[in-house]
Amino acid sequence: MELFYSSDISDGRLYLDGEESQHCIKVLRHRTGDEIAVTDGTGNLMKCRLTDDSAKRAGAVILDIIPDWGGHPYDLEMAVCPTKNIDRYEWFAEKACETGIDSICPVIGEHSERKILKIQRIRKILLSAAKQSLKGKIPDICDALPVKDYILQRKESSDRLKLIAYCFEDEQYPRISVKDALNDMPEGCRAVSVLIGPEGDFSPEEASMAVECGFIPVHLGPSRLRTETAALAAVFAVYSHFML
Amino acid sequence: MELFYSSDISDGRLYLDGEESQHCIKVLRHRTGDEIAVTDGTGNLMKCRLTDDSAKRAGAVILDIIPDWGGHPYDLEMAVCPTKNIDRYEWFAEKACETGIDSICPVIGEHSERKILKIQRIRKILLSAAKQSLKGKIPDICDALPVKDYILQRKESSDRLKLIAYCFEDEQYPRISVKDALNDMPEGCRAVSVLIGPEGDFSPEEASMAVECGFIPVHLGPSRLRTETAALAAVFAVYSHFML
Repeated sequence: MELFYSSDISDGRLYLDGEESQHCIKVLRHRTGDEIAVTDGTGNLMKCRLTDDSAKRAGAVILDIIPDWGGHPYDLEMAVCPTKNIDRYEWFAEKACETGIDSICPVIGEHSERKILKIQRIRKILLSAAKQSLKGKIPDICDALPVKDYILQRKESSDRLKLIAYCFEDEQYPRISVKDALNDMPEGCRAVSVLIGPEGDFSPEEASMAVECGFIPVHLGPSRLRTETAALAAVFAVYSHFML
Repeated sequence: MELFYSSDISDGRLYLDGEESQHCIKVLRHRTGDEIAVTDGTGNLMKCRLTDDSAKRAGAVILDIIPDWGGHPYDLEMAVCPTKNIDRYEWFAEKACETGIDSICPVIGEHSERKILKIQRIRKILLSAAKQSLKGKIPDICDALPVKDYILQRKESSDRLKLIAYCFEDEQYPRISVKDALNDMPEGCRAVSVLIGPEGDFSPEEASMAVECGFIPVHLGPSRLRTETAALAAVFAVYSHFML
């Protein structure tokens, strides 16, 4: 099954943009009358019939809409510091989308070497991964913001399980495993935010601030995982907790 | 901490090869008398003192040996079909090593598009990942072999939990989640083998043969995961089961 994306939808009709039209008409050779599947990126799968096989702006009529298509029974926000090597961050975005997340917040820590991120590129990777893994909802990605700003934004979110993966070597804050943290979640809570630091880890001030704002210190087991591997390990832990 | 690798060890002394010597002496500027940490790739961490700071063949005397260093309390063999895009397989090898595995068996399925794999390249990635993630044991990688040969090789391994991730759409073999399969493991069993198919999945004959030879059909949740993501999800599941 091939999934297309459209943001140009109204009155029971939709249009594919240049790139999607090219792929649909030129590469896959769909013609007027063919049925195609289109997502609006918010979770809806639309079964459509092509009414215009233009390779620049293909048009279709919507036959049926399936909401929350390819969705998951949790809400997962990953606040992850960009890696020095950006390929690794892009790889994380792809794999996290494939597995099932709702949003990525690129956060810049005091020890972050990379302070700038091309959001448009990641957005494209998320769109492509969502189509590939047949998910109706494309994860959101927000503009990069400092770790401390993110923590303050999430301070009042008491309806979410908020986790921070940090070594806390001074043992001021004892850590539990991410698995135990998920098992201890209040019943009915399905929203999780996970904060993952840069290669140089969080600063002690960032870590203390997170704990004061309700983030639970967690570890991801004894292996020394890179930033992007740790982030994906957390995604798999949440996926596994709710799904398997 | 920086970890070096040596296979040239005897009588309480060791030598680093050209590449490792270059890195140790030229890049990190270690000199005779410095203490360095060296792994032999089988799990031993050797604390050494440099006695010869040659950038071509540095020599050192072994002061102390710590066995099973950076090890994990399970034995995990991943039999994974090579992906069409080999970068994805190499990425899996790196991430799996970081997390904790013992061996990779590249297996060629009847539906595999890629039938050849450069083992030396993967071996190099595993060495680099083991050093980066401070693991004394470098995972083994064997030569590629057909899926059916691998299954027959593992037929008599009744002391291992053997899992196959396959869609089994005909429902001839009901699947359980990989998490439940791990929870149902016989007490004391710590050896796991997981078989992951190519982009085109296993052939029905391969899948039936695996089940007949004691492989338990498992799923990795509802998301449609790529080969390399599925393989890493299985690695995380085993890691999480034994460690967290």
